[in-house]
Amino acid sequence: MFRLLKTLGLQCAMRLKRSLSSEPSDSTPASPGTGVRDERKQRTRKALLDAALTLLDGERSFSSLSLREVAKVAGVVPAAFYRHFTGMDELGMSLVDDSFRTLHEMMRVARSAPLPPANLIARSVETFLRYAQAHRLHFQFIAKERVSGSSSVRLAIRKELRLWTSELAADLVAFPKLKGFNGDDLRMMAGLVVNAMMSATELILDADLNDAAELGRIHQLAQKQLMLIFLGAAQWKSKPVQ
Amino acid sequence: MFRLLKTLGLQCAMRLKRSLSSEPSDSTPASPGTGVRDERKQRTRKALLDAALTLLDGERSFSSLSLREVAKVAGVVPAAFYRHFTGMDELGMSLVDDSFRTLHEMMRVARSAPLPPANLIARSVETFLRYAQAHRLHFQFIAKERVSGSSSVRLAIRKELRLWTSELAADLVAFPKLKGFNGDDLRMMAGLVVNAMMSATELILDADLNDAAELGRIHQLAQKQLMLIFLGAAQWKSKPVQ
Repeated sequence: MFRLLKTLGLQCAMRLKRSLSSEPSDSTPASPGTGVRDERKQRTRKALLDAALTLLDGERSFSSLSLREVAKVAGVVPAAFYRHFTGMDELGMSLVDDSFRTLHEMMRVARSAPLPPANLIARSVETFLRYAQAHRLHFQFIAKERVSGSSSVRLAIRKELRLWTSELAADLVAFPKLKGFNGDDLRMMAGLVVNAMMSATELILDADLNDAAELGRIHQLAQKQLMLIFLGAAQWKSKPVQ
Repeated sequence: MFRLLKTLGLQCAMRLKRSLSSEPSDSTPASPGTGVRDERKQRTRKALLDAALTLLDGERSFSSLSLREVAKVAGVVPAAFYRHFTGMDELGMSLVDDSFRTLHEMMRVARSAPLPPANLIARSVETFLRYAQAHRLHFQFIAKERVSGSSSVRLAIRKELRLWTSELAADLVAFPKLKGFNGDDLRMMAGLVVNAMMSATELILDADLNDAAELGRIHQLAQKQLMLIFLGAAQWKSKPVQ
């Protein structure tokens, strides 16, 4: 299970690269003043992204946000918005990038931690859900906009989730107990795992973070669901021709 | 599996009752003209509900809808809205009732159909997803507002889904192969089934309904996911003390 989780972030490296390369001038300092300007520019960019996430923390959906109100919450004039994004759609895509980068960082940390081979499911679920709690606004953005977002944002999130599922499936190949699976069926199983984790994340987003008992129940539920999936998987035999 | 599905609608009978009893005067005809007035009243009520569903068929979310625009699309003046609902929140709750009543009707039809004991999972998934296709707007409403809806609507949908999961779990008790489960774990398993069906429904909502191959892939994916869950379940042993 830990090996599964490690692949969750692979595709995010690509996004990270794309995201960074979208502002090429920032990465080539030309004069002593450039560093300060870059820093200020990055601060404003972050303020705009944070403003959108803050406005979404409630009943609002991304497609209901206006460029003007995002700029206002970020403390900049609307014209300044355009120095960072061509419009709300591009800001939305950056939020998708950032949200899945959070997932990537989580996986990097999980991989570097000394994990015992036992209890891998329990530990992996624990790591995932703790990150979801710590990066609530990003995970809330994914959960909400995955279904009801503007078309381009929704499609970008769906694509990231499909990539996540495929990478997870690719890593499942290494499990000796899953030899009975062909590629399609591994993706089918990975889809169940991703669904279970997204569903647990939604419960976490709605939970009172001070209610340790409730959080414990959500963690235990997700662990058991993954254990049930893996129990079934050990019995699975893909049909030779799919 | 078929027995599972049959319970999905039980709690909807309650909602149906509540919904009908909310307009008691309609069910006690007093004069020859009452029937006509009732019919007109029901038509307007339905027009308001349909108007909201139509406005939601795109990037809009329920909390972004105004009473005024719903009335406009329904072809009535805003004052007429109040003869049917105290506000948008009550209209939202009626949409939740109607959407889960759709699920109830589906289960009633599925129960009355002569089903062979074999292929129950395949047939049940088929029945569910065909209904989701036929009642696209209701299922889209559930899928969208479950995560991003206004608080009261979201909580009502979550409650219905929890009820659905519990009823499903209660029916699982009858399966001889699931003797290893305690009550908590049956709900855990039922949660996986509900997640898989909701996830397949979301794929159906995004799919081109003329693309038979794509629809076939979604149906097959959901069937396999349920089969995997039931394979795992046959191996499950709940701990004596939970």
